[in-house]
Amino acid sequence: MLSKAQIKYIQSLQHKKYRQKSGQFIAEGDKIVPELISGGMVVREVYATKEWISGHEQVLSGRVPVIGVEAHVLKQLSALTTPNQALALVDIPPAAPLVLKGRVSLALETIQDPGNMGTLIRIADWFGIKQLICTPDCVDVYNPKTIQATMGSIARVNIIETDLLSLLQKEEVPSYAATLQGTDITTFSKLAEGIILIGNESKGLSDAVIAASTHKLTIPRLGGAESLNAGVAAGIICGRLLI
Amino acid sequence: MLSKAQIKYIQSLQHKKYRQKSGQFIAEGDKIVPELISGGMVVREVYATKEWISGHEQVLSGRVPVIGVEAHVLKQLSALTTPNQALALVDIPPAAPLVLKGRVSLALETIQDPGNMGTLIRIADWFGIKQLICTPDCVDVYNPKTIQATMGSIARVNIIETDLLSLLQKEEVPSYAATLQGTDITTFSKLAEGIILIGNESKGLSDAVIAASTHKLTIPRLGGAESLNAGVAAGIICGRLLI
Repeated sequence: MLSKAQIKYIQSLQHKKYRQKSGQFIAEGDKIVPELISGGMVVREVYATKEWISGHEQVLSGRVPVIGVEAHVLKQLSALTTPNQALALVDIPPAAPLVLKGRVSLALETIQDPGNMGTLIRIADWFGIKQLICTPDCVDVYNPKTIQATMGSIARVNIIETDLLSLLQKEEVPSYAATLQGTDITTFSKLAEGIILIGNESKGLSDAVIAASTHKLTIPRLGGAESLNAGVAAGIICGRLLI
Repeated sequence: MLSKAQIKYIQSLQHKKYRQKSGQFIAEGDKIVPELISGGMVVREVYATKEWISGHEQVLSGRVPVIGVEAHVLKQLSALTTPNQALALVDIPPAAPLVLKGRVSLALETIQDPGNMGTLIRIADWFGIKQLICTPDCVDVYNPKTIQATMGSIARVNIIETDLLSLLQKEEVPSYAATLQGTDITTFSKLAEGIILIGNESKGLSDAVIAASTHKLTIPRLGGAESLNAGVAAGIICGRLLI
């Protein structure tokens, strides 16, 4: 059973302010909850239906306190329009130290849509990018919709929030800005080190960030569309530069 | 002014049944409405706020009947949670004849999410793919959320709904199935002709479609994510095979 105070606390974590205050977030989803547990995140408690618990005894066994709740309680706890059978209370991991040398990082400027943010984290994870740099004005990565869209990848990608411009100005490693007026992406060879830069959904990267980047790259357009979705663009760039 | 019957008619077009009956659909969005007009679609009427109309006189001038409506009426007409300043009543274009030889087509099996469908149409348009083949169990491309996600690309891509399996079995052109157990995509050279096949968001392509395709391809995975979003996967494949 959950007390009213517990329900209220979990609901409060739908808001960034309370997540920052408590250092915890909520992960929802039948597949995501087990992924976070096996991915080594600090899962404090799992709230799930009895059916779900009996189907997931192996992943849960002893490792995490599990509370069986009715579907209507899960609905109360959920921030999503379609609630899931399981929901976890998770610690926000401490930020790992920023390491730019010898690896590829993905950096995001002013990404606003929680679903896009989740998709971008999932792309980073697919391509083995372990470090995601976000400007402070990006949507919070611990937003419930973002967490759901990562499909568990949040457990395998370090998130670092920092001022991108001052980072680029140090020119520690090469940086690759996705723009509409850059060099054809097919002329670049495979990357071993650097920062791939993806900008806001409607405005793209800021002029300052583009100017501070060492390379500007463009996905050649063969048809009529004005632009590509930020996640799709990031996927195409990783698909050309990392494999 | 719009009559109650007109409002009811426009609202009815949120449902596939009424779109099929009437042969019309609704396009919403400040950018999409002008794109559909200049893209040559048969736009029957535009409903927009006075401010929007005065800012778009050039694209509208004489070509399309425009009705000024109050914001609260637009809200009534809209199928979206965030209504736009302009909405258009558009004829569903007649299906163009299927042509497989000498071009690249994108084929979708059982895509369920309207946003993903719109993103896929936008990707096709970016890469100059003029023909999108959908299985009959895909989400309707004239769904208001799909239309919005196409960002106007719906005007430049022919949509053909057909049985994909029987099409593949004719083996008129090579076909490339996106799977998790195929040949590394980086070993393929640039395509001039063929069908790129993308499957359902959670299940991927059906075994029958994979078996009937002439090539199976896989995006190499370097990290931990189990899968990629259908739109992202399609973008990466187009980014390797078409440019």
